[in-house]
Amino acid sequence: MDFRLSDEQQAFVQAAREFAAGELAPNAARWDAESIFPRDAFAQAGALGFCAIYAPESIGGLGLPRLDATLVFEEMAAHDPSTTAFLTIHNMATWMIGSWATEPVRQAWGPQLCSGEKLASYCLTEPGAGSDAASLATRAEKRGDAYVLNGSKAFISGAGDTDVLVVMARTGGAGPKGISALVVPAGLPGITYGRKEDKMGWNSQSTRQISFENVEVPAENLLGAEGQGFAFAMKGLDGGRINIATCSVGAAQGAYDAARRYMGERRQFGHALADFQALQFKLADMLTHIVAARQMVRLAAARLDAQDPQAGTYCAMAKRLATDLGFQVCLDAQQIHGGYGYLKDYPLERLVRDSRVHQILEGTNEIMRVIIARQVLEKGADIR
Amino acid sequence: MDFRLSDEQQAFVQAAREFAAGELAPNAARWDAESIFPRDAFAQAGALGFCAIYAPESIGGLGLPRLDATLVFEEMAAHDPSTTAFLTIHNMATWMIGSWATEPVRQAWGPQLCSGEKLASYCLTEPGAGSDAASLATRAEKRGDAYVLNGSKAFISGAGDTDVLVVMARTGGAGPKGISALVVPAGLPGITYGRKEDKMGWNSQSTRQISFENVEVPAENLLGAEGQGFAFAMKGLDGGRINIATCSVGAAQGAYDAARRYMGERRQFGHALADFQALQFKLADMLTHIVAARQMVRLAAARLDAQDPQAGTYCAMAKRLATDLGFQVCLDAQQIHGGYGYLKDYPLERLVRDSRVHQILEGTNEIMRVIIARQVLEKGADIR
Amino acid sequence: MDFRLSDEQQAFVQAAREFAAGELAPNAARWDAESIFPRDAFAQAGALGFCAIYAPESIGGLGLPRLDATLVFEEMAAHDPSTTAFLTIHNMATWMIGSWATEPVRQAWGPQLCSGEKLASYCLTEPGAGSDAASLATRAEKRGDAYVLNGSKAFISGAGDTDVLVVMARTGGAGPKGISALVVPAGLPGITYGRKEDKMGWNSQSTRQISFENVEVPAENLLGAEGQGFAFAMKGLDGGRINIATCSVGAAQGAYDAARRYMGERRQFGHALADFQALQFKLADMLTHIVAARQMVRLAAARLDAQDPQAGTYCAMAKRLATDLGFQVCLDAQQIHGGYGYLKDYPLERLVRDSRVHQILEGTNEIMRVIIARQVLEKGADIR
Amino acid sequence: MDFRLSDEQQAFVQAAREFAAGELAPNAARWDAESIFPRDAFAQAGALGFCAIYAPESIGGLGLPRLDATLVFEEMAAHDPSTTAFLTIHNMATWMIGSWATEPVRQAWGPQLCSGEKLASYCLTEPGAGSDAASLATRAEKRGDAYVLNGSKAFISGAGDTDVLVVMARTGGAGPKGISALVVPAGLPGITYGRKEDKMGWNSQSTRQISFENVEVPAENLLGAEGQGFAFAMKGLDGGRINIATCSVGAAQGAYDAARRYMGERRQFGHALADFQALQFKLADMLTHIVAARQMVRLAAARLDAQDPQAGTYCAMAKRLATDLGFQVCLDAQQIHGGYGYLKDYPLERLVRDSRVHQILEGTNEIMRVIIARQVLEKGADIR
Repeated sequence: MDFRLSDEQQAFVQAAREFAAGELAPNAARWDAESIFPRDAFAQAGALGFCAIYAPESIGGLGLPRLDATLVFEEMAAHDPSTTAFLTIHNMATWMIGSWATEPVRQAWGPQLCSGEKLASYCLTEPGAGSDAASLATRAEKRGDAYVLNGSKAFISGAGDTDVLVVMARTGGAGPKGISALVVPAGLPGITYGRKEDKMGWNSQSTRQISFENVEVPAENLLGAEGQGFAFAMKGLDGGRINIATCSVGAAQGAYDAARRYMGERRQFGHALADFQALQFKLADMLTHIVAARQMVRLAAARLDAQDPQAGTYCAMAKRLATDLGFQVCLDAQQIHGGYGYLKDYPLERLVRDSRVHQILEGTNEIMRVIIARQVLEKGADIR
Repeated sequence: MDFRLSDEQQAFVQAAREFAAGELAPNAARWDAESIFPRDAFAQAGALGFCAIYAPESIGGLGLPRLDATLVFEEMAAHDPSTTAFLTIHNMATWMIGSWATEPVRQAWGPQLCSGEKLASYCLTEPGAGSDAASLATRAEKRGDAYVLNGSKAFISGAGDTDVLVVMARTGGAGPKGISALVVPAGLPGITYGRKEDKMGWNSQSTRQISFENVEVPAENLLGAEGQGFAFAMKGLDGGRINIATCSVGAAQGAYDAARRYMGERRQFGHALADFQALQFKLADMLTHIVAARQMVRLAAARLDAQDPQAGTYCAMAKRLATDLGFQVCLDAQQIHGGYGYLKDYPLERLVRDSRVHQILEGTNEIMRVIIARQVLEKGADIR
Repeated sequence: MDFRLSDEQQAFVQAAREFAAGELAPNAARWDAESIFPRDAFAQAGALGFCAIYAPESIGGLGLPRLDATLVFEEMAAHDPSTTAFLTIHNMATWMIGSWATEPVRQAWGPQLCSGEKLASYCLTEPGAGSDAASLATRAEKRGDAYVLNGSKAFISGAGDTDVLVVMARTGGAGPKGISALVVPAGLPGITYGRKEDKMGWNSQSTRQISFENVEVPAENLLGAEGQGFAFAMKGLDGGRINIATCSVGAAQGAYDAARRYMGERRQFGHALADFQALQFKLADMLTHIVAARQMVRLAAARLDAQDPQAGTYCAMAKRLATDLGFQVCLDAQQIHGGYGYLKDYPLERLVRDSRVHQILEGTNEIMRVIIARQVLEKGADIR
Repeated sequence: MDFRLSDEQQAFVQAAREFAAGELAPNAARWDAESIFPRDAFAQAGALGFCAIYAPESIGGLGLPRLDATLVFEEMAAHDPSTTAFLTIHNMATWMIGSWATEPVRQAWGPQLCSGEKLASYCLTEPGAGSDAASLATRAEKRGDAYVLNGSKAFISGAGDTDVLVVMARTGGAGPKGISALVVPAGLPGITYGRKEDKMGWNSQSTRQISFENVEVPAENLLGAEGQGFAFAMKGLDGGRINIATCSVGAAQGAYDAARRYMGERRQFGHALADFQALQFKLADMLTHIVAARQMVRLAAARLDAQDPQAGTYCAMAKRLATDLGFQVCLDAQQIHGGYGYLKDYPLERLVRDSRVHQILEGTNEIMRVIIARQVLEKGADIR
């Protein structure tokens, strides 16, 4: 067992930290306030390889393990969980295309997605089916050389601003086996985008509903074979859960760092806040929970990298734990800032708003518990 | 012991509920989104007596107990904690003027504050002294028939939109005994208002810093005698803590009501959410915590009404408990709504943002614990 | 609304406090260590009226409201939750006999139960049906002038040491409507008692299984009419839940009192524990939670006294909250005592062990949540 | 980074699991009930190398890393945290002797301690100085070739049943630098043992006070040099905290395993407990917290093995987190068992009682927070 980062990993962390400090930290508040989707920043991230960390090298990705991706995302999320979270979604979609698309599609989209010149959205959730993904109703009917797509998707990150969509649609009967995955250029005729959703946070990501009305998608845009879509989506989600969990760890670290600094500077009743034992204890617990959450995320990533049969369970545990602990750490850091924590001049309230959604999406934390319990109770998995 | 509302109290609740449903519910989201300070709504509240519930009848108040005030504020906060919370601050300031101002000042301001035509702000907190109110640095020097005010205040609710300020300022030496309270017309020469603070929530209340530069305040605008200001401020805060706690109970009730409805309507995996036991348990705990918080608030209000020597401790306990439990209930209700809870189309995320600050202001919940512990450890109070 | 105790209630509290200090405090540790069922103490409690606080005056009870009973039980539980909890069970059974037994049975048992000369057990739970009381399998068949009882009961407090049993048994078909309640003298032929259960706590109460083999119970020993037994049992449980909740409040108060004292006496690192802010905060939260729990219990008792249709829901909420908070307070007080809290020389570890079971019995706290959720989701109750 | 166990480690786990199932599981309840200190079991553990897992090979130890020790202790603690915890203390004391004793002492005691024929106690805590170890008052005065020992120790595990004591005593002035460590044969003249403490749990370990009255200890029994004792004690405690944390992880795993089995077997309301979603969620959280706690423990052990300068902080974090989470998991597993969880026929209540003390000893969890906070606030450590 070895918990240390390799030299390469440390260099990777350093690069991510510098990028985050230089590009995200100075802009995150503005992107949030003005709901700006920062395409430039994504392109710069792409130049560093951060748009395709675990996508295959054959399309221009770095081909690194998930564990390495968490190192990068965590550094970025310390300054801007919203922008980072979109980047993780793009990474996921790019990895899916890189892994299962036909050669023409891989060549058409892969390099530009890897460089960050083009961006991708992941389209699973539907208005009537939040966590219940297997019940999705969007249909893709094969007609000649094309699939004709009808239906709608909801809560799609980047929708309206991205260039390509990975869409889960029903090509067969009811249930998960009837679902396929398609690579859909974002501007195809018949695609319409809803209004930009007004959200509590994650404002640097546009979120929109998407409607498909007789959208003709070339048949070669199918990922893998018909009926494999749900399996792909779930594989995507395993990694997606690690990514979101990582964003919570990063946000928590950013919040903790701010609180620690503030405790040294701010004085009340003639003492620095750092002198008050109750705040010291709070800070100690924050740190402890961040370290614990980070370890869970890395453990899950390692399991996923190793294709452990229980990797999905570890991902669910990591997502549940890290997003809950991470949010609480952000709240605690905000509390330590007192009234200033409630002002937008400080990053705390944004970290709270942004990290709040991590408990909800990629499967709510309630769904995570369903997944874990099913493994150990129904399937009898002996997880340690 | 009797836990029932009287018929009069029930009628009062009913009036508040109707006002809240008619005036606040339809507008709260917009006031939040556009940062509107709804003067009209306050005037309508005033017409119902809600601007001066416990202010003395001699200036046009209802002269009711604090307990009755909580009944009204709770109903309103279920739809709009931010607007309600400002109304409670106005009530507090109006009560202070009604209780301790000189007759000319009571007559000059009382009736219009009671009717809601004029609005008042409470000015205690300073930039360098958040929870440490006794260390305040704003000075009021007596020169002839006036106090000359210099200094600045921070986090002042309504500042820039209100008509009169109740300002705590130092007329004597260091410490709490050197502080006096002044009634300061908001537009006096030498008063300047900072930019409107950009906040996580409480957006229907403008919050600004206020600077006083040689502001001449007539000497008759002193509340009580010199040196009594801190005592007045603390008395105000006791009630203010009940008010804020009430706003949290109300917000929680509003969030719970929404969640309960949603659980009946929303279906996932072929079942209403109401069929899922884990969500049932969450809802049961939410309700239990609301009922417990409400009882604590009412107990504290009753103690304050009875001028119990330990009333302040009960107020601190109620504020700590109700604002923590209330915020958690809002989070839980948001969680039950899944992704929709994160959208501004639903009230949940606003209730979360608004109720968050209740844990911070009127003395942070950490300060509440300091107050409670001091009573039982230093002063040996036997509180049950 | 009025939260104050009347003079009579205060006198009642005082009497209970003195009894608890004089009889329970000096003996509780020994009764626990040696598993002594203190019949003498119950007789002395009876002399004060504490064996029949809410039983009807017609059989020698005090006929007081439940709310008054909580005042007594709380004082006693501060020193000995186990002994007090048995006393509450005896009160419940006595009240049932006083309320629904035939006149001969009321006269035969009532006065001696009220005086504490005789003691009663309540027999609902069965080995195969813990929380699922309605599925009970013990049968009572009417044969001539007697019911013939067969079956077994589990976890019966006082079993083997008490004089009379209130037994729920099936006289009719499946489900709750087939259940009747019988008053069964403890020594009837065919009754055998299992070994004394070895428990984590509640050691001053013997707990045994009871087997009934063709036990002939006079028909006049039926409570009310056939088929009413489950309703009686549930009514009993509503009050029983308040009683158990009260025992948790009392235990928590006892633990808090000890911790507060200890913090003043014990020194570490050159300071009294009372000087450490983190411990101050813990103590403040303990007190806040005790006060909140106590209010919930009193509210529920008042609702039950007033025969509020939702009284059962309030009882469930009070039981859930007070037993959870009470246990946590006991743990916190133990923690404040450091290593000494783990020794039997101090009462803390006993308060922890005794109060632990309150979260489990009279319906687990999970069942409480089922009850609450059913009311608000299925039955649409609007509880505030 | 690598989270997998090596083949050797897996074999080690397997051996520990078999030992625990064969020797501890069948006896733990009896050892607890009858307060038996199982010398035979320790000897058998010694035969497997478990009495000296990280003691140096030069005295007969296995010389393995701490990380490997946690693997063994965790398996054993799943069945018997009390017996395992003593074994960890013996390991610690043996390692101290193996590391810092003079050659004659190493040879005299090492092999027999490693084999488990002799057992050792660790004597740091004093009656007046629980967590404040640096203030200890036991004195050792050098007189000729001996140290003359006077003073007393409290809460000493194994005292009265062990063969040798590692005693911290003051040879110099006030503060930590005046403390030395001595190897003291347990039967030297002038050593008297107090009565066996009556405790909530940890009953298979005798705990006694020890008094030293003019006890003459050969000077060669000094560990290292004079004044190094506190540093040795703290190094010991770093490992001791990992050990205790490991015992909590093990206890939690044992409790979880029991709860998972029970949920499949026990039926209520016509369903297996495993069918109830609220219990499923509880079980999922239990597992998640166990996995998180285990990772923290392993991370801390790895840091200690690597002599990371912040190893002590990681040990404190692991101890705080794992003992809190572990205790909660034991409580949850007990709750799932309902009334049966309160009976000594099931292991749950014992696991609760035994794991409770882990939050208190080896420095309370409050002291852990002091340690963590000091590092990050005073010393500016950047811990991730």
